[in-house]
Amino acid sequence: MLELYHGGPGANSLKALLPLKEKGIEFTGHLMNLLQFEQHEPWFVKINPNGQVPVLVHDGKVLTESTVINEYVDETFPDVPLRPQDAFGRAKMRIWTKFVDEYFCPALSFLGWHAMIRTAVQHLSPEEFEARVARIPLKEQRDKWRESAAQVWLPEQLDEWRRKVRSSIERMEQGITGPWMLGSQFTLADVSLFSMLIGMPVRYADIVNEKDSPRVIEWYARMMERPGVKATLMIPQPGREFLAARQKAAAHGSQS
Amino acid sequence: MLELYHGGPGANSLKALLPLKEKGIEFTGHLMNLLQFEQHEPWFVKINPNGQVPVLVHDGKVLTESTVINEYVDETFPDVPLRPQDAFGRAKMRIWTKFVDEYFCPALSFLGWHAMIRTAVQHLSPEEFEARVARIPLKEQRDKWRESAAQVWLPEQLDEWRRKVRSSIERMEQGITGPWMLGSQFTLADVSLFSMLIGMPVRYADIVNEKDSPRVIEWYARMMERPGVKATLMIPQPGREFLAARQKAAAHGSQS
Repeated sequence: MLELYHGGPGANSLKALLPLKEKGIEFTGHLMNLLQFEQHEPWFVKINPNGQVPVLVHDGKVLTESTVINEYVDETFPDVPLRPQDAFGRAKMRIWTKFVDEYFCPALSFLGWHAMIRTAVQHLSPEEFEARVARIPLKEQRDKWRESAAQVWLPEQLDEWRRKVRSSIERMEQGITGPWMLGSQFTLADVSLFSMLIGMPVRYADIVNEKDSPRVIEWYARMMERPGVKATLMIPQPGREFLAARQKAAAHGSQS
Repeated sequence: MLELYHGGPGANSLKALLPLKEKGIEFTGHLMNLLQFEQHEPWFVKINPNGQVPVLVHDGKVLTESTVINEYVDETFPDVPLRPQDAFGRAKMRIWTKFVDEYFCPALSFLGWHAMIRTAVQHLSPEEFEARVARIPLKEQRDKWRESAAQVWLPEQLDEWRRKVRSSIERMEQGITGPWMLGSQFTLADVSLFSMLIGMPVRYADIVNEKDSPRVIEWYARMMERPGVKATLMIPQPGREFLAARQKAAAHGSQS
């Protein structure tokens, strides 16, 4: 029995969903609304004490961290391999997945939170908000929610995260070696990077565009044609829908 | 032919050295003095454009990032396995190695740099220092050298890094499941954590001690008895020796 707790096809949840779809593995998905703090509810913290998605449960074994989950899934269900056959190729793949986790994702995540959390929580009273934040297991996550809601980040911090996002795209642009990141084989390097890139040609059009990053744009178009990607992107994303509804409510509120 | 460029048995260089010694693999070591900026010299930047150690060169293939190097070495030289035989065990191992890279190491590294870089570079004129820093390929590393030398970090930042170091030791203390981190097998999880722990019972005695972290202390003592660890710790560490000489020079200077 294979179950995935996730927030729909965005960021690290997308990263864990895509290999399952690419491999055609049957699994039970548990879709969670991250912007309504579902991942911090006591029933879920019993599954993952860090209160974070994605979480894979395989025959009772609980796995966390999308990058770790993906290597596990590829080792356990090897029929459609998503890692190079040779050790050096796997090392090159891990340089990319590690780069996403340590550099690209944190920068993009802080920018995303800055842009969205205030809208997502403004219907809550300060007391309601604090009560929800107080349940978050990790201090770093509590800080991130509070700082995003209060918009405390300085312009210099936002600039530095944007610089890192731009630098990540430049590194990708220079690093693509074939139709896929590592050449002819589609691998977990493509999966990790795509989980960040999704939506960027629209939301970060000044960084991801045909002039500045033509090879990234071509790679993105190839990604969007993959049946596994199409199947993954059809999964609902409750957080995005919730945010859209909040934005609409806020716009109406400001007109009244 | 196997070559390792490294800074001696500390931090990430220790992390890459230890598996080679544990496995008894012959290699040519290239010992570099990191506090004299050797890793930023043009000849080395040709090998690793990021100007960082450790770097493994195996039959012409260049590998960077100690955690990635270690999985490569274990896959390529499997006689003495340093990873669990089963996929779930490997996932648990990677949770630890990832935790070290993303949380424990950055906190410890900032504290270490804050404590040591000013002494290491105070014999350089501001112009000499800037000339050396200007050669560093990564912006993040240039910032870290400059900020460490100028001691710009706020007490709150130092406190937060100390909190993270303490939290890392607490997580280890709770997570040890046997004689080694994952139970009966010595793995790359032990390697990664030990590369951070080395010296901590002395330098961070308020955090790593028999009262607060008895299981960590016992594990550390077991580590120090391993022949592979003993062999690794006999390798010179030019940076440490250079720093000791600088400290001595500074002490004499202040008395004159």
